[in-house]
Amino acid sequence: MENSTISAICTAQGNGAIAIIRMSGSKALQIISEIFSPLKSGFDILHDSEANHVYNGFIVDGDKNIDRVVVTVYKNPHSYTGEDVVEISCHASPYIQREILKLTLSHGAELAKPGEFTRRAFVNKKMDLSQAEAVADLIASKSEADHAIAMNQMRGGITQEIKKLRDLLLRFTSLMELELDFSEEDVEFADRTQFKDILKQTIQYLTRLVNSFKYGNAIKNGIPIAICGQPNAGKSTLLNALLNDDRAIVSDIPGTTRDVLEDTLVINGVTYRLIDTAGIRDTEDYVEKLGIERAKSAIQKSQFVIVVLDPKENIAAQYNEIIPQDIRPESVIAVINKSDIYPEVDTSVLPSGINIIRISAKQKTNIDELLNLISDLNSSDYNPGDVILTNIRHYQIFSDALVSIQRAEDALNSGLSGEFVSQDIREALRLFAEITGDEITTDEVLGNIFKNFCIGK
Amino acid sequence: MENSTISAICTAQGNGAIAIIRMSGSKALQIISEIFSPLKSGFDILHDSEANHVYNGFIVDGDKNIDRVVVTVYKNPHSYTGEDVVEISCHASPYIQREILKLTLSHGAELAKPGEFTRRAFVNKKMDLSQAEAVADLIASKSEADHAIAMNQMRGGITQEIKKLRDLLLRFTSLMELELDFSEEDVEFADRTQFKDILKQTIQYLTRLVNSFKYGNAIKNGIPIAICGQPNAGKSTLLNALLNDDRAIVSDIPGTTRDVLEDTLVINGVTYRLIDTAGIRDTEDYVEKLGIERAKSAIQKSQFVIVVLDPKENIAAQYNEIIPQDIRPESVIAVINKSDIYPEVDTSVLPSGINIIRISAKQKTNIDELLNLISDLNSSDYNPGDVILTNIRHYQIFSDALVSIQRAEDALNSGLSGEFVSQDIREALRLFAEITGDEITTDEVLGNIFKNFCIGK
Repeated sequence: MENSTISAICTAQGNGAIAIIRMSGSKALQIISEIFSPLKSGFDILHDSEANHVYNGFIVDGDKNIDRVVVTVYKNPHSYTGEDVVEISCHASPYIQREILKLTLSHGAELAKPGEFTRRAFVNKKMDLSQAEAVADLIASKSEADHAIAMNQMRGGITQEIKKLRDLLLRFTSLMELELDFSEEDVEFADRTQFKDILKQTIQYLTRLVNSFKYGNAIKNGIPIAICGQPNAGKSTLLNALLNDDRAIVSDIPGTTRDVLEDTLVINGVTYRLIDTAGIRDTEDYVEKLGIERAKSAIQKSQFVIVVLDPKENIAAQYNEIIPQDIRPESVIAVINKSDIYPEVDTSVLPSGINIIRISAKQKTNIDELLNLISDLNSSDYNPGDVILTNIRHYQIFSDALVSIQRAEDALNSGLSGEFVSQDIREALRLFAEITGDEITTDEVLGNIFKNFCIGK
Repeated sequence: MENSTISAICTAQGNGAIAIIRMSGSKALQIISEIFSPLKSGFDILHDSEANHVYNGFIVDGDKNIDRVVVTVYKNPHSYTGEDVVEISCHASPYIQREILKLTLSHGAELAKPGEFTRRAFVNKKMDLSQAEAVADLIASKSEADHAIAMNQMRGGITQEIKKLRDLLLRFTSLMELELDFSEEDVEFADRTQFKDILKQTIQYLTRLVNSFKYGNAIKNGIPIAICGQPNAGKSTLLNALLNDDRAIVSDIPGTTRDVLEDTLVINGVTYRLIDTAGIRDTEDYVEKLGIERAKSAIQKSQFVIVVLDPKENIAAQYNEIIPQDIRPESVIAVINKSDIYPEVDTSVLPSGINIIRISAKQKTNIDELLNLISDLNSSDYNPGDVILTNIRHYQIFSDALVSIQRAEDALNSGLSGEFVSQDIREALRLFAEITGDEITTDEVLGNIFKNFCIGK
C-alpha cells in the first residue's frame, strides 16, 4: 500500500550523547548499503545482514566520513512498522544528524510525516488504531497515572473490552436477524430476557466508559486546582510549602507548558495543576472587577478549589467574598492558615459540606495531611487496569454507540420489530469498529489521528 | 579497574519518539535480566543473549509494565566502553525514561558521571585520550568545518602525527644515548646533520600545529565578525540580507547560546558570529562614550570588521569615527551601501589596504559577492584533512613540546653534550604521550577532561 521509504530523526533535539535516524520501507536496506561503510571488511549489509542485528561502521558521503555509527537492521514483517527498518545510532551532533538525514533523503528516502511510522504499523496490522493512538499518549505521558492509562490502551485494553462487547452483541443481533428470515413462522431464536440483560449491561459499561473521559482527560492534562485567598492569607507561603514537600514531586519536564500562574504537582502519581489566582484582586476598581471575574473563571474551570483563610479576620466573610455560592461544597478545601498563632477558630460559620483543614504554611504543619486530602478528594471509583478514555475521538464514538444501544433497548422494550433493534445494534458495532480501525481507514481520518504525533514516530 | 555498572539516559530531553538508556559494566546483563520480560517466552537474556543482537519485550517493575522496548546487547570487549553494554530503546516519555533509569539504579547500577562511558572506553584502551576528547567535540559540532576537525581527531589524526614524530625522535635520541655509554670512545652513532634536519622539520611542524589553534578555536566557536556603522547606514537591512541569503544557512540549533546582539551565519561550512554593534551609539553623552568603548571592544575581539558606510554623507569621516587606527587594514571590509542611489563614490578617501565592496542592502545587490569576500578573507593555508588544534589542553602541551625541541636544537647547534639534547627530546616525548594519554592518567587530569562531556557519553 505504501511504497515509499521514509526517514526521520527519532530522538529529541538538544543536549544528548546519542541520536537515532530511522528509515522504514522496501528501500531501507538498499539506502543504508549505499551510505554505510562497515568496519568488517568485505561485509555487505544489503545481502549479508541478519534481522535484529547491529553493525558497526561509518556513515560516508562519497569519501567524506560523516560519523562512526551503529546500524540496527529489522526485517519485514518483524519490525515496528512491519516493513524493513534500519536505525542509525550516531553521535548527537546537530550537524551530524542533519547530514545523515539529508544523505538518506538524497539516496531515495522521503522525509517521514508526523506519526507515519506508527501509521504504517497500523496499516500493516502490527497494531489496531486505538493501540496506535496510545503510542502518542505513551510518549507524552508525564506521570504514573497517565502513563498507566496509555500503557493499558497500548497493550490492547480498549480493544479487548470492545471485542467482548462485539461478540455478545453480534451473537444476539445475528439470531434476531435470523428470526426475520423466518418471520412468517413467528419463532424467537434470541432469548429476549437474556438480550435485555445484555443491553442493560452494555449500557452500564458504556456509560461508565463515557463518564471516564472527564477523569481520563484530567489525568492526561493534569487536574486543575484553583488556589485563592486574600493577599495576606499566606497563599504564596502555602504554595511554596506544597511545592517543596518531599512527597510532592514538582514536575520539571522540558516542553511542559508552564504559565507563570501555574505550578505542577504530582501526588501519588497524579498530576495537579495549581492555578494561582494571586494578585488579581488588590488593584484599582475596574481592574478589581476584572480580577474577580478571572478568579471566578479560574474556580469554575478547576476541579477543586483551595481557599486559604486568615483566622486573624472574619473567615466567613473571606470565604463568601471569594467562593461563588453555586459551587459544589465537596469540591472546596477551606484551609485555615496560621494555626500556630490562632489555634482556636470557629469553623461552624463556614458552609456545611466543604472540606476544612487547619495548617500553618509557615511552620509547615499539616501540609502532608493537605496533600492527602487533595489526593483523597480526587480518588475515583476507577481502579488501576480499568479502561479510561483520554482520547476525544474515542469519547465521541462511545457516546454515539451508547445512544444507539439505548435506542435498541427502547425498541426492544416497546416490542418493536427485530429489524429496528438490529439496525441500532449494527450501528453500534460499526462504531466499535471505528475505534480499532477495522472499519474506517479514510485518509482524512487517519491524517487527523496521526498529525499530532511527533515526526520520527 | 572500574567495577561499578553505570547507567544514564543518552538521548536529549524534549520532543522525540525514541529515547535510549544505556548501562555499562559487569552487572549490566544481570540487571537487564531482572527488569526485562522478553516477548519470546522461555528466553533468558542473561544466558541466552548474543552479542550485537536486539531483543523485544517489556521493561517491568514487579507486575507493573513500564514500556515496550528494544534491548541491544553488546559483550565485553566488543563494545563502546570495552565492557558489557546494554542499551534500552524506549518510548521517549519523560516519565518512562525516569522510571527505567530509576529501575536500573535500584537494581544495582550507578548513575554515570559526565563522560564516564567515554572515560571507560579510554581506560579500557578502546581509544586514546585525544580520540576520547574528540568525541565531545564531535557531539558539539555544528558546522561542516568543526565537524571535519573533530572527525579527523576521532579517527586518530593527531595520534598518527604524534606517532611519526615520536618514532623519529626516539630513534635519534636512543642513538645519542648509546653514544653516552661509549663516551670514552668518542663515537657518533647519530648522524648530527640528519638529526638537525629532523629537529628543524619537527619545529616547523609543531609551529604550524600550535599556530593552527587560533584558527581551530575560531572554527569551533564561530569566527567573530563585528558589524558597525552609523544608524542610518543600513546595517540592519544588510544583516537581514545576509541572514536571508540562500547561500547563508542561519544556524537554528537548539541550545546554541544566542545573544540578542549576535547572529550566526554558516558560509561554505564555516560558522561566523555576526556581532552587531547596533544602537550603542545614538544615546546621551555618557552612554555614548560607553557605547563607543563597547563598539571598540567588539571590534578588537573580532577577527574581521564590516563597516557599513552611507555614501550620502562623508564616508571617510564615518570610517574614521568608527574604526580604530591601529586595526589591520586587511581585516576590514568597508561596505559602501545604497549603491543603487549613489553609484559614483570616491573610495580613494578610505585607508589603503582595506577591502572595499559596493552593495545595495535594500536591493540585495552584491550580497553574494560580500559573502564570498568574507569566506575568502578567512581562507587559511590549512587543507581539509590537516590536523588542526581546537583543544586548549593540546595547545598547551604542543607549545611546551615546541620549546623543548627548540632547546634541543640550540644545544645541538652549540655542540653541547648529547646528554642535554637527549634530556630535552625526552621531555618532548613525555609531553607527546600526555596528548594520547599513554603517560598521564591521574584522576585529576582525567576528571578535568571528562567533566565537560554530557552525561550518557
